[in-house]
Amino acid sequence: MNNKVVDSRISPVGHLDALSRGEINKLLKNNQGNLYQLFRSCALAVLASGNYSDDGKALLEQYKDFDIQLLVQERGIKLEVMGAPAEAFVDGVMINGIAELLFSVMRDILYGHEKQSFPCANSEQATDAVFKILRNAKLIRPNIEPNVVVCWGGHSIRREEYNYTKKVGYELGLRGLDICTGCGPGAMKGPMKGATISHAKQRHTDGRYIGLTEPGIIAAESPNPIVNELVILPDIEKRLEAFVRVGHGFIVFPGGAGTAEEILYLLGILLDPANEPIPFPLVFTGPESAREYFQQIDDFIGITLGEKAQHRYQIIIDDQQQVAATMRQGINDVRAFRKREADAYNFNWLLRIDHDFQQPFEPDHQNMAELKLNKDQPAHKLAADLRRAFSGIVAGNVKDQGIRAIEQHGPFKLQGDTAIMEPMDKLLQSFVEQQRMKLPGTEYHPCYQLVK
Amino acid sequence: MNNKVVDSRISPVGHLDALSRGEINKLLKNNQGNLYQLFRSCALAVLASGNYSDDGKALLEQYKDFDIQLLVQERGIKLEVMGAPAEAFVDGVMINGIAELLFSVMRDILYGHEKQSFPCANSEQATDAVFKILRNAKLIRPNIEPNVVVCWGGHSIRREEYNYTKKVGYELGLRGLDICTGCGPGAMKGPMKGATISHAKQRHTDGRYIGLTEPGIIAAESPNPIVNELVILPDIEKRLEAFVRVGHGFIVFPGGAGTAEEILYLLGILLDPANEPIPFPLVFTGPESAREYFQQIDDFIGITLGEKAQHRYQIIIDDQQQVAATMRQGINDVRAFRKREADAYNFNWLLRIDHDFQQPFEPDHQNMAELKLNKDQPAHKLAADLRRAFSGIVAGNVKDQGIRAIEQHGPFKLQGDTAIMEPMDKLLQSFVEQQRMKLPGTEYHPCYQLVK
Amino acid sequence: MNNKVVDSRISPVGHLDALSRGEINKLLKNNQGNLYQLFRSCALAVLASGNYSDDGKALLEQYKDFDIQLLVQERGIKLEVMGAPAEAFVDGVMINGIAELLFSVMRDILYGHEKQSFPCANSEQATDAVFKILRNAKLIRPNIEPNVVVCWGGHSIRREEYNYTKKVGYELGLRGLDICTGCGPGAMKGPMKGATISHAKQRHTDGRYIGLTEPGIIAAESPNPIVNELVILPDIEKRLEAFVRVGHGFIVFPGGAGTAEEILYLLGILLDPANEPIPFPLVFTGPESAREYFQQIDDFIGITLGEKAQHRYQIIIDDQQQVAATMRQGINDVRAFRKREADAYNFNWLLRIDHDFQQPFEPDHQNMAELKLNKDQPAHKLAADLRRAFSGIVAGNVKDQGIRAIEQHGPFKLQGDTAIMEPMDKLLQSFVEQQRMKLPGTEYHPCYQLVK
Amino acid sequence: MNNKVVDSRISPVGHLDALSRGEINKLLKNNQGNLYQLFRSCALAVLASGNYSDDGKALLEQYKDFDIQLLVQERGIKLEVMGAPAEAFVDGVMINGIAELLFSVMRDILYGHEKQSFPCANSEQATDAVFKILRNAKLIRPNIEPNVVVCWGGHSIRREEYNYTKKVGYELGLRGLDICTGCGPGAMKGPMKGATISHAKQRHTDGRYIGLTEPGIIAAESPNPIVNELVILPDIEKRLEAFVRVGHGFIVFPGGAGTAEEILYLLGILLDPANEPIPFPLVFTGPESAREYFQQIDDFIGITLGEKAQHRYQIIIDDQQQVAATMRQGINDVRAFRKREADAYNFNWLLRIDHDFQQPFEPDHQNMAELKLNKDQPAHKLAADLRRAFSGIVAGNVKDQGIRAIEQHGPFKLQGDTAIMEPMDKLLQSFVEQQRMKLPGTEYHPCYQLVK
Repeated sequence: MNNKVVDSRISPVGHLDALSRGEINKLLKNNQGNLYQLFRSCALAVLASGNYSDDGKALLEQYKDFDIQLLVQERGIKLEVMGAPAEAFVDGVMINGIAELLFSVMRDILYGHEKQSFPCANSEQATDAVFKILRNAKLIRPNIEPNVVVCWGGHSIRREEYNYTKKVGYELGLRGLDICTGCGPGAMKGPMKGATISHAKQRHTDGRYIGLTEPGIIAAESPNPIVNELVILPDIEKRLEAFVRVGHGFIVFPGGAGTAEEILYLLGILLDPANEPIPFPLVFTGPESAREYFQQIDDFIGITLGEKAQHRYQIIIDDQQQVAATMRQGINDVRAFRKREADAYNFNWLLRIDHDFQQPFEPDHQNMAELKLNKDQPAHKLAADLRRAFSGIVAGNVKDQGIRAIEQHGPFKLQGDTAIMEPMDKLLQSFVEQQRMKLPGTEYHPCYQLVK
Repeated sequence: MNNKVVDSRISPVGHLDALSRGEINKLLKNNQGNLYQLFRSCALAVLASGNYSDDGKALLEQYKDFDIQLLVQERGIKLEVMGAPAEAFVDGVMINGIAELLFSVMRDILYGHEKQSFPCANSEQATDAVFKILRNAKLIRPNIEPNVVVCWGGHSIRREEYNYTKKVGYELGLRGLDICTGCGPGAMKGPMKGATISHAKQRHTDGRYIGLTEPGIIAAESPNPIVNELVILPDIEKRLEAFVRVGHGFIVFPGGAGTAEEILYLLGILLDPANEPIPFPLVFTGPESAREYFQQIDDFIGITLGEKAQHRYQIIIDDQQQVAATMRQGINDVRAFRKREADAYNFNWLLRIDHDFQQPFEPDHQNMAELKLNKDQPAHKLAADLRRAFSGIVAGNVKDQGIRAIEQHGPFKLQGDTAIMEPMDKLLQSFVEQQRMKLPGTEYHPCYQLVK
Repeated sequence: MNNKVVDSRISPVGHLDALSRGEINKLLKNNQGNLYQLFRSCALAVLASGNYSDDGKALLEQYKDFDIQLLVQERGIKLEVMGAPAEAFVDGVMINGIAELLFSVMRDILYGHEKQSFPCANSEQATDAVFKILRNAKLIRPNIEPNVVVCWGGHSIRREEYNYTKKVGYELGLRGLDICTGCGPGAMKGPMKGATISHAKQRHTDGRYIGLTEPGIIAAESPNPIVNELVILPDIEKRLEAFVRVGHGFIVFPGGAGTAEEILYLLGILLDPANEPIPFPLVFTGPESAREYFQQIDDFIGITLGEKAQHRYQIIIDDQQQVAATMRQGINDVRAFRKREADAYNFNWLLRIDHDFQQPFEPDHQNMAELKLNKDQPAHKLAADLRRAFSGIVAGNVKDQGIRAIEQHGPFKLQGDTAIMEPMDKLLQSFVEQQRMKLPGTEYHPCYQLVK
Repeated sequence: MNNKVVDSRISPVGHLDALSRGEINKLLKNNQGNLYQLFRSCALAVLASGNYSDDGKALLEQYKDFDIQLLVQERGIKLEVMGAPAEAFVDGVMINGIAELLFSVMRDILYGHEKQSFPCANSEQATDAVFKILRNAKLIRPNIEPNVVVCWGGHSIRREEYNYTKKVGYELGLRGLDICTGCGPGAMKGPMKGATISHAKQRHTDGRYIGLTEPGIIAAESPNPIVNELVILPDIEKRLEAFVRVGHGFIVFPGGAGTAEEILYLLGILLDPANEPIPFPLVFTGPESAREYFQQIDDFIGITLGEKAQHRYQIIIDDQQQVAATMRQGINDVRAFRKREADAYNFNWLLRIDHDFQQPFEPDHQNMAELKLNKDQPAHKLAADLRRAFSGIVAGNVKDQGIRAIEQHGPFKLQGDTAIMEPMDKLLQSFVEQQRMKLPGTEYHPCYQLVK
């Protein structure tokens, strides 16, 4: 394959702290035991932001000669890229937003991606790690008003669903709300585009377009350059925790297995009795054509986790103003609650997240097979294992490591109560039929098998 | 008719100088000989920005009870609006961009709209007046790089033409270029929307979306709130001069009579022998469907003004990147030229504009009838009268006063050489057929009659 | 005399609007009827800021070859100085603060110093002129808290008095107050130096050091470079009005005839019955050694203007904290009053200034002789003529024109009631004895003669 | 003793990162093993900034009831102080600069003062620790020009020496140079005051007044509130290293034992053969009256460390302009060198500092007795031990722990070559005679004894 590529040298963009000589060493190519490979692959994902593919392996193979180097200079460092995807440049100059993301990648890889960086022996330590990584990325600001809406949903949605996410983003922006997503295409890009226009109209000049990602997903969901605060969390659990600690309101657009994973993660936390009093605005929404999709999700939740879980969210179909007004009101309630409890506006300390939810889940064949998908446990525990099941399916679909495992050992095997496995089967089948498992146009080969 | 309206009190937005007691008096409703009525009608146009209509009279009748008042306070003034169009507000709060535009209206009405404000006895004085009005509006900044692209074209264009203007705006913005338009809908809004997205990606945070208008046109081409630098020039000639003095590059999208007027105005100036050495990037562009339209314009220019005129512009069809690259290069040339000649980057002093072009043209029946539409004169003089002819047609189509005149006295009569009148007839007919004279969907009753 | 001089080219400093070609012409040397000479002499005064002399003629003679030129460039103008006093430069580069003042001079000369610029046929027009000149100089800011303390007093005071003014300035600055003076040495510099230190400690980073001057006095009271907002009013009456409209609190340090003039100006206004309800904090202060001086002033006021006048001020000796606390409290009262009356925080519109006070007083021999220094008139009218008498004495002491008049026609003759002339004689004598008429070390030849 | 004290609650000043719940716990009073006591004593030192004493124990005893608490709120933290010295407040409100310093103390105590924070097993690690502490304090900025002048000298110097330090600071500031000191009174305050005035004149609005201190010295050399970048390093060695890594030029004013310590530290590093090529501008300066003092220092250096050491500095007497011009030139050379070597402008990475110099020296009786004060070693090793000797004397004079040790065990005993001990004796005697060991007016009881 013949790609257009560019070589270039770029100066730091954004607020970047100086690096020590020790830190610089960790990113150098020829340094043993360093972070260079991780840096290179995340950097490539950022540079390929227009080049959507959800095959994690493909990108690295496509740009085999891509290289990135730190240059030390009297005023700080520069980055030199070689063989970089041409679409990151205009007339030979890197798009500023992409350059900024590149330096964010560098910053985060250095700070939080060494195994020993953050001990996470208990829930407090894990939360502390998430906080410090976000703070180091300047995401935790001292004097904000609650206004961050997390938007979740598929990266490979249909045009009309995409347009709807733009309209929702526009209405959120009109109401002074900022956007946080997983920072890829589709439902992760639409709200940002919409909000960009309304922020301009509202002179909301410091609009935040937050993207939270992790090394395993970044290649498939490459951050679009509107994102002006990107954080690469070290693993998927820290990424999910970052979303719930940083967001003030939550919207779920149509998506596939990844979206289901996110919904189950949220419900697992919200069903924890300790979190009952905490306000947490959560809306599932899409255009008219997505009505059935959300009906299926709602049914699945009702059957598996019960009515209590269903009370934690609201479904609004095809009414972007209603969605935005609901978020605005919900966030006002969050603000009042935090003020009363002296909980920080910029980080949801009070929300209890079980240590179980924070521990990395390695979606290999054994772990997938051992998930407890039955009702002999509290709802929030079941939600946790359901979340893991969907997480594994996402890995098998789009993550480099997951794809290789499936190639080698065949599909993951999942087993559990029929009362859970049957609705799950139905839900996954509908995702496949609706082409929500892969980018439209590609044929889907399931990476899982339900053992009923 | 039953409109949703809102009453509200708004604080100054944007950089606004303090007002003297004398200035405040001029805007008060009950002050004799004041500027109140002008202020009220322009303010209403700004507030009705979503409410596109091109009937200048309609708006004032639709919002009969609309009122606006200055309130004097210890920290400066506030504005109180009563009976204002509801679409200017979100959840009862005025959209910030609209509030900013409202204060711009106030600023400009005060500064440049009293007859005696600026004597314009000769070309120098007229240019000085334009400069001072723009400077007072903070449009003339001390330390800029040339990057302002003026985009002209119809306010009532088709969806696909509109989408194309967005794409062009996006590509301009990617190259660090700012947008200046007549600030209504259609071709005046699309480039700004497109550039807003690419400016975000380029972190071009101080992107300028300049709108230049005048009291006679503002109601029909209400500024959209993305506009962050609005200037209400006192008359159409000063508005046109402002465009050519402030812009560094010029793009013409498809439009109707107004667009033809603008093209003829430009050519009238550029054909002046004194302006021959001055670089002036000018591109006519549209999607594939506009190819024929520009062919007709090009033919008309060739026949009436000659080949020299045709050399002053370039026609590019359906290639937004080519358009943007041409502008970027053209503006680089402008920069080099101004640097060499020590002409200001922020105001094109060297361009000679004949005093003829600066004097307000009152498009009444007599003046229209007396236009010299024949070839017994230098091309730039003919261009000037052709420009006036189209200006009168625009007035008869959409301006309050023009519409009333036509209602009273019947269509304007235009006469001249057959070699001019026939192509003109053909051009105007094609505008009518292509529904470029009025907002699509309304039937067009010609306001002119060509006497061949 | 052999002065060290420097040639240099300087770029604009501070917020400077672009100039039109017409404006630039007015400042060019070879342009007839222009403002060049005025510009040159004021510019020289600014450049000679360390070079204190109070002989208005001397400076121009000392730097005969000094020249200043505008250079037009693509990014705006530059100034070229030739034969400029070397003390304005450090290692060949002009001190930034001085460069800023130079551009302020240019701005003000252009705006307000053409005779026809501002008609002042009545009190409203004169006030409007003062407002617009200050606004053009960005002195009238939209969103301030009242905090400007005007400090008056001699430019040629003793070391211990000077040190005291520094201490007062320090205490004012600690309380968040800004300083406004006539911007020369002595009592006009000390408070600014003191406040600079305390503003640094309070992180009051946008501290304002306002200097108000006029062409006749600027050479003798050259602005020190701490001044970061300089305005050259066109005449002494507008300068005095600017002080009282812009200041929120007023302190008078020991001085000479100029200080007496300022005190009488204030009392003339404050004794106007229309101004009775307006709060106007006014303190006379100095170190212990100045106790007698203020006693003499107080006596003179008591005898000539009566007890009511004495109630308008407070005398505080040798207690800088008490002075600052009194100002802080007084300004709080001013704030409350303006808020209640909806009078602007940035300009004292409500204060009535009689048109008499606004009209330039030409201190020639005839006008001086005709002053009505008797008690057959309201106190505020007498104060006005007493003010004029002292104004004439200042002119005869230090102003170019005044000095020449005295050289030609001998001392001014003043006559009036013995009950006024005798205390006046005593007061002036004490000024002479205390060396308050001239810079210490020079012998004083009286420029006036009291005809009792 | 009866002190005026104030209770107050203060909001964060300066750029302060949010704190995690874990970090907040470390500063709470009732938390075991925490940093509270350290925080309290440093905070008190900052609050007592006007209250100069050089008895480290006195302050804590004087304000026994002083307490400081963190309050957690929705927008971040506040600090509550009880029983704080009244001089930190104006009209009941804490001086902003002091509040800022207080939050700096909090930041640094949290970051670098836990034993385990930074392993320093070798020179690289120790340097890395210094870098990270400074970076965390925002002292290491990404895009600076070299302009930091470190000023050392006594905190208890005479009026005329103090005035001279102000004049030097003024001249440095005129040349765009910033000031870094140990941040107490005397020679550490004068240059900052002088530079504040000239920075104002040069519109150098972001002037840096850097103070580097450590917990053992802060009480005796309380930072004055002009300091706008304060860092509390964890120990004296890191503090000294911070000076040499951050400064671009170095000035030594007259002082006592502490100043001698600093000079010896510098020479110890500069005599290291590895540092020979590195430019390092170093000037000793004072008014005429200090000529003899520097003669004695120079002699002592010549005798003990040799001529090579003497070549590393320049002595300039009573010529502030010469000092400033020398610094300006020297720093230009530093800039050229770093550019050539691609060494950072903001941190002197290339300077080699032996691990010996980085290890904390505990000045107890045994360690002092064991110092090798003889010539059987390279000059830079001898310089290191001489530095430790003076360091111990400073501790015995003004540090809490040192004073207690002397009270208990009598004076430190120092021994070595006569060729060193005799000149040292002479030097120390002259310090005592010139009252440079203690604040003038207090009798000095030597804390050391030279065993010859």
